[in-house]
Amino acid sequence: MKAALVSTKLHHLYRNLIWRSFSTKFAMANSKFEYVRNFETDDRCLPNTWIVVRVDGRGFHKFSEKHEFAKPNDKRSLDLMGKAAGRVMTEFKEICLAYGQSDEFSFVFKRDMDLHKRRASKLMTSVASIFTSAFVFHWPQFFDIPLKYPPSFDGRVVLYPSTQNLRDYLSWRQADCHINNLYNTAFWTLVLKGNLTNAEVISLKVL
Amino acid sequence: MKAALVSTKLHHLYRNLIWRSFSTKFAMANSKFEYVRNFETDDRCLPNTWIVVRVDGRGFHKFSEKHEFAKPNDKRSLDLMGKAAGRVMTEFKEICLAYGQSDEFSFVFKRDMDLHKRRASKLMTSVASIFTSAFVFHWPQFFDIPLKYPPSFDGRVVLYPSTQNLRDYLSWRQADCHINNLYNTAFWTLVLKGNLTNAEVISLKVL
Amino acid sequence: MKAALVSTKLHHLYRNLIWRSFSTKFAMANSKFEYVRNFETDDRCLPNTWIVVRVDGRGFHKFSEKHEFAKPNDKRSLDLMGKAAGRVMTEFKEICLAYGQSDEFSFVFKRDMDLHKRRASKLMTSVASIFTSAFVFHWPQFFDIPLKYPPSFDGRVVLYPSTQNLRDYLSWRQADCHINNLYNTAFWTLVLKGNLTNAEVISLKVL
Amino acid sequence: MKAALVSTKLHHLYRNLIWRSFSTKFAMANSKFEYVRNFETDDRCLPNTWIVVRVDGRGFHKFSEKHEFAKPNDKRSLDLMGKAAGRVMTEFKEICLAYGQSDEFSFVFKRDMDLHKRRASKLMTSVASIFTSAFVFHWPQFFDIPLKYPPSFDGRVVLYPSTQNLRDYLSWRQADCHINNLYNTAFWTLVLKGNLTNAEVISLKVL
Repeated sequence: MKAALVSTKLHHLYRNLIWRSFSTKFAMANSKFEYVRNFETDDRCLPNTWIVVRVDGRGFHKFSEKHEFAKPNDKRSLDLMGKAAGRVMTEFKEICLAYGQSDEFSFVFKRDMDLHKRRASKLMTSVASIFTSAFVFHWPQFFDIPLKYPPSFDGRVVLYPSTQNLRDYLSWRQADCHINNLYNTAFWTLVLKGNLTNAEVISLKVL
Repeated sequence: MKAALVSTKLHHLYRNLIWRSFSTKFAMANSKFEYVRNFETDDRCLPNTWIVVRVDGRGFHKFSEKHEFAKPNDKRSLDLMGKAAGRVMTEFKEICLAYGQSDEFSFVFKRDMDLHKRRASKLMTSVASIFTSAFVFHWPQFFDIPLKYPPSFDGRVVLYPSTQNLRDYLSWRQADCHINNLYNTAFWTLVLKGNLTNAEVISLKVL
Repeated sequence: MKAALVSTKLHHLYRNLIWRSFSTKFAMANSKFEYVRNFETDDRCLPNTWIVVRVDGRGFHKFSEKHEFAKPNDKRSLDLMGKAAGRVMTEFKEICLAYGQSDEFSFVFKRDMDLHKRRASKLMTSVASIFTSAFVFHWPQFFDIPLKYPPSFDGRVVLYPSTQNLRDYLSWRQADCHINNLYNTAFWTLVLKGNLTNAEVISLKVL
Repeated sequence: MKAALVSTKLHHLYRNLIWRSFSTKFAMANSKFEYVRNFETDDRCLPNTWIVVRVDGRGFHKFSEKHEFAKPNDKRSLDLMGKAAGRVMTEFKEICLAYGQSDEFSFVFKRDMDLHKRRASKLMTSVASIFTSAFVFHWPQFFDIPLKYPPSFDGRVVLYPSTQNLRDYLSWRQADCHINNLYNTAFWTLVLKGNLTNAEVISLKVL
């Protein structure tokens, strides 16, 4: 009780002497400067379109070398990518499909969803951040060696008006995946099993 | 030599039997679907403006409770935020100033910089991702308890045409910082030293 | 021949004395300032969407009074609007449908069209300008009294991803047309045939 | 009085039998379809920037030939352009400067103006429309021959953050004006006074 009494007095002190002047001063400063909020733009995605957010590893060629990724594909890395994507889908129930390959992952939001008022910046930064966070957080579950430095992923938003456009987007990423995989498999087979150097394989000019 | 011979045969095999058909097929598929790239928009920031990227913690009220942050301010958290911001500035030399408070951080890019062609999506997702990555990566250096789940930050881009606008932006964040700090300091003093409950403080309706 | 000779000398004069210095000077000035072109933004409309450009009369309440339009509808004005819309459709074969009412007209571009690279600003300003030009140009064919001052129309672009969205847009304009028409017909019948004043009709508070 | 009585009955008729059902039906239809308004985007110009709207003649090469413009410059046309620009400035007091040459005109809005909430589409279509309207409306004051068909102008919006950028924009247009004028003056002097054909002048490859 006594404590409460003291605190009530304390609160009166605040109210009467300090708070009234300081809070007013800061609030006035705040409202004086608040006009800068008007410089933010409204970047809501067109309604009734499929929203695709794609994240891409930044500088992953170097990152994979520094962390000695297996060639042509590193299962640990692919599994970790999948784990990170799962985390994104857990946080955003509005995502209906995700597709990944190499150091990229695409997330498809339902076309009628209204999360974050469909603001492009909010969606792409949140997805990129959650994906990155989960990638770093779960790293020890998939790799024996520790992370040498924090990796990162950039992101973008693309809108597809029709379901056919969305299918073609996914087909595009899939074809890209096969082309790269076939190339990498052939390349690294020639290097690892054919005993050629990287430069020799490139000089063959077949691939 | 022998190995090279084998690999050369192998490569002929690839070239003659497999590669020619598959690579063509996939490349054709790729080019057939590549039209979907045209749906990406050009979101370059207006030249000669200050580009501010601000990241904000997503759901940090819950996050700070789960990780038992000290009230009103948790030094470990603030130091970690600073560390993460430092990482962003190390990766982007084009950032000339950063200012943070609570669970947010603002990064100011030089107005004449041309990184990533000033594309807004590239800049904000990269900053949000690097910041998040460093936050998780360096967590153990600042906290004794392990992270319970991966935290995330969203981001946005705002352009300021004049230096005065930029100053006012920073003043706005600073005034916001003081208001919140004063409130939180008073609130938690009443709770922690005045023995009031959260509800009781709120019911005082002074703050 | 003689003339050609003179002109050739003249041309040498230009080349040797004047042109070389002036053109270089201006061309340099031009290229020095040309950087300002980079401030233009790329506002291409999302592919595979219906592009609707709607033009609206600016200050047409006053305009219709000044030119003594018949109430509730002025046939001459509606016919002139139709004529102007026809002109827009003649210039843009990519428009597949137009719908007008009162002082507004909507133009629907085929969803796969690529005119002007689908740049929103080019499309909406061209449509607004052609419409206005034809409206003024053909005025005397529809009205006995001369135009008292130049009328104008603003414009906007709206994208519709699905055909159902486009249908609903047209239904929306049509419902709007009926509501206004019913209101105006009732209102002006009470005024013109019921001998009420405008104020009296409004005071009835039925409409 | 009798008329009023009749009209009151008439109004009751409307209210009780027709209006109640129709207006409700149309209003419901309207609200059912009104969701399509959400597809409109917010295109407000960044605050505190100079807004330049430039209009350009569409197909003016052909237009000037059809209307037998004098070469290299047609005073009537230039004066009419100036008249049309004057009309734009009369309607928009927020325009502080205009500069024209050939078949184009640039209008500079004060950087702190808030007309139409700085919506780019509203500003550029209004300027293009008013300019076009005045051009057609005032044509007979400047030309003896009648307009053969309605001319049109497209428009665009460009933002300039600093006053230096704006100056450089105007210098760019001015340099462009001088280059074109010098070229045209030389070209048409060779044609008109040197008795060369257009093709011959071009074949000289000096200009």
